[in-house]
Amino acid sequence: MKKLTILGSTGSIGTQTLDVVSREPEAYEVIGLAAGGNIGLLIEQAKRFRPRTVCLSTKALAEEAKLHLPSGMKVVYGEEGLIEIAAAPEADMVVTAIMGSRGLNATLAAISAGKDIGLANKETLVTAGHIVMKRASEKGVAILPIDSEHSAIFQCLNGEARSAVKGITLTASGGSFRERTRQQLEGVTVEEALNHPNWAMGAKITIDSATMVNKGLEVIEAHWLFDLDYEQIGVLIHPESIIHSYVEYVDNSIIAQLGMPDMRVPIQYALTYPQRRPIQTEALDLRKVGALHFREMDFARYPCLRMAYECGRAGLSAPTVFNAANETAVARFLEGAITFLDIERVIEQVLERHTVLEVPDVEAIAEVDAWARMEAASI
Amino acid sequence: MKKLTILGSTGSIGTQTLDVVSREPEAYEVIGLAAGGNIGLLIEQAKRFRPRTVCLSTKALAEEAKLHLPSGMKVVYGEEGLIEIAAAPEADMVVTAIMGSRGLNATLAAISAGKDIGLANKETLVTAGHIVMKRASEKGVAILPIDSEHSAIFQCLNGEARSAVKGITLTASGGSFRERTRQQLEGVTVEEALNHPNWAMGAKITIDSATMVNKGLEVIEAHWLFDLDYEQIGVLIHPESIIHSYVEYVDNSIIAQLGMPDMRVPIQYALTYPQRRPIQTEALDLRKVGALHFREMDFARYPCLRMAYECGRAGLSAPTVFNAANETAVARFLEGAITFLDIERVIEQVLERHTVLEVPDVEAIAEVDAWARMEAASI
Repeated sequence: MKKLTILGSTGSIGTQTLDVVSREPEAYEVIGLAAGGNIGLLIEQAKRFRPRTVCLSTKALAEEAKLHLPSGMKVVYGEEGLIEIAAAPEADMVVTAIMGSRGLNATLAAISAGKDIGLANKETLVTAGHIVMKRASEKGVAILPIDSEHSAIFQCLNGEARSAVKGITLTASGGSFRERTRQQLEGVTVEEALNHPNWAMGAKITIDSATMVNKGLEVIEAHWLFDLDYEQIGVLIHPESIIHSYVEYVDNSIIAQLGMPDMRVPIQYALTYPQRRPIQTEALDLRKVGALHFREMDFARYPCLRMAYECGRAGLSAPTVFNAANETAVARFLEGAITFLDIERVIEQVLERHTVLEVPDVEAIAEVDAWARMEAASI
Repeated sequence: MKKLTILGSTGSIGTQTLDVVSREPEAYEVIGLAAGGNIGLLIEQAKRFRPRTVCLSTKALAEEAKLHLPSGMKVVYGEEGLIEIAAAPEADMVVTAIMGSRGLNATLAAISAGKDIGLANKETLVTAGHIVMKRASEKGVAILPIDSEHSAIFQCLNGEARSAVKGITLTASGGSFRERTRQQLEGVTVEEALNHPNWAMGAKITIDSATMVNKGLEVIEAHWLFDLDYEQIGVLIHPESIIHSYVEYVDNSIIAQLGMPDMRVPIQYALTYPQRRPIQTEALDLRKVGALHFREMDFARYPCLRMAYECGRAGLSAPTVFNAANETAVARFLEGAITFLDIERVIEQVLERHTVLEVPDVEAIAEVDAWARMEAASI
């Protein structure tokens, strides 16, 4: 029985993780659940999965939740509570499905406590890959990717020598606006941007998919997860999202992972690795799909992806600035304060104002992160 | 340095194996070369690769070859010579690239002598899978598939538990006549049949590809190689031959092997397994390919494939009869004695006349094989 703590249990990945857990209740025990502000759903989950501890974002929410939860259940809150629940001794594995850079401290706490990590928080590796991978290696914990692309790469590396890898290719659906020219992106609405053709995901990641920021973050993540140079990481437009990503080996043999777009498959893989267990999702039938299409990534069409590569190669504080500027810009777009194309303009201008510097620890990262958010809010 | 003997060195797989060897001369030593009647090419190969022994099909050819070969080189001939060279103590691995059922005794001799097998002879497993796999297991030798489809499956199983396999799918280009209806197959010429759209191969296998007999033999081979039920082995039309085959796991994750159609990749993989080494072949670029297509296999369009599954399920002598009847029918078609559609009629009629029986040893298989050839020649 695997003992799990889920950080971000009421979000898209969190609820799907609990869906996977609920289909094999004898295989898992839920130790902790952490949510932001969706107290109703958290209470429902807590009643069903009976964790020992739950975490909410504020003291007020925690007090309110206590009124509805079984009396023995511990309720913690805030950044401190999140770290406590992430490091709780009972769990074997922590699924980090909190969006944004808030997940970093909790992830590091879980690693320090020797937990394997089911990594669904992109920003952890983007901003602190150098710290996280080093600490994970020292602690001997596994970082198991939950993203479909990284899970695909991880699966395609099974049983192979890393020295035999020539490179990897992350596939990209192209997002909500893949059939539009740049000119046609002027004036698109939030509603249009949230309508992803293949995947049902949270709002922020759906926007990131349309701007290709998401793929850029994945490229930087892949750099850390698989210890690859940026020259070894390619991106390919594949509208059907059936080939989730692939590895090319030195003998020109390509190993790819395919499936229907359903996050529960990579989630379960992270939970059961190195085993595979049956799952009740739709199986891929290539006869029905009929055709798979591919086209070259257009870096002029998607300048955010170009900036992500540039920031990845620059290293140090650059990816943190890229990520923080984007988070703020997306939030402003979702509020209706800026246009869709302003997102990339905001990121570009914040990057222009930034001089790359070393970020040796979480505090330094947090400082750079805060600066970039402030700048991004002011443009 | 890997010490190799190549049975069928002047054929398509044999020459490509030597091409792979010649690109990394420090990695291989050629111990033996066996050919049928192409004495000119065999002499050229022998002078270049300096094997200790060469084998030809007849005494007369052997005598003639001796006149042109270095004096220390041993020359053997016939079935006996083939067995001698296959079992020669110096070799680590024997590549069995002899077409047809002649390769069986030599393969068994190599296995008994403890050699790993680079298997390119389909008929070995089709007719004697029950004997070959048992003896290989007893002797602890590896059977490394060289066929692109089986190599793909073999690669996709790397690092995975066999119990996690739901099934496999072998892709089929559809062969020379894939765009024709059955009616349009009446009166096709030998020349048209030999014009395979994707792969440059020998004549017999090109015809087998057009009739889908080749895929049928591969299905039966896969049954033995990977210990799968016929229900677990699917076939899919994939005209581009880019996805070479794939494995579906119980968690609905599919792992596929892709590449340009070039036999040197699976040949080298068999030679270097479990390592991969760089190779100077064209790398696959999915941006250039643009699209991959898939369609359901049509068993009415390809009755030979239906018969192959039926024979595989019947087991015992049935696959031997299927294979032998086909070999004879294809030879007659290539001679112009029968039409293209007669190939399937011949196989069907021979199967109708046959009562399936046990074939416990090579002699019993040879008897059934001879009977089927005689019948196929008489129809």
